[in-house]
Amino acid sequence: MKNLDTAFSALADPTRRAILARLALGEATVMELAKPFAMTQPAVSRHLKILDQAGLIIRRVDGTKRPCRLAPDGVAAIDQWLGMLRDTMARNYDRLDDVLAEMTATNQKDTP
Amino acid sequence: MKNLDTAFSALADPTRRAILARLALGEATVMELAKPFAMTQPAVSRHLKILDQAGLIIRRVDGTKRPCRLAPDGVAAIDQWLGMLRDTMARNYDRLDDVLAEMTATNQKDTP
Repeated sequence: MKNLDTAFSALADPTRRAILARLALGEATVMELAKPFAMTQPAVSRHLKILDQAGLIIRRVDGTKRPCRLAPDGVAAIDQWLGMLRDTMARNYDRLDDVLAEMTATNQKDTP
Repeated sequence: MKNLDTAFSALADPTRRAILARLALGEATVMELAKPFAMTQPAVSRHLKILDQAGLIIRRVDGTKRPCRLAPDGVAAIDQWLGMLRDTMARNYDRLDDVLAEMTATNQKDTP
């Protein structure tokens, strides 16, 4: 994962998200990607370059083809950041639950 | 969640990600956010406006203050999209495991 900035920026485009969703199913070449998306190959290549630079896909050389696949590390890095946010929120809610439980207990004690 | 495009685009900035991480701990005003980030209040306000438009934060009116907090729905929408990607990848790996297991079984059967 090169950088969270470039990764999130790359994900801000619906075509690039659709390409990633297709690659989650398995490796594909530029030609294979261009067909279902009704795009020219240069247009697909431009999107792939951005996804590659963002560390979200990996490309390999296979003769004249350069099939690409999802980079699990790139997806994991984004997942990790979101997980941190989710965990902090959850801990915060737990703390709120504790405070509310304590308040309820105190109120019950105070009620005659 | 208004739009995954604007949400991912908003997350492509390190200051905005840091603001979200702070808000995961609980509600904060512009003034409270400006201090630790060593930023002017107008600069913080600009970032908050982008996060608000992306559906990632919720602001409420409290007299002259407008404290903001994380929008759980916004974070959940991003989580959901990543979850879809993760699940598709996992199913794909499972399928690959099945194919490999079948190949191993066939090879063992063929071995005299």
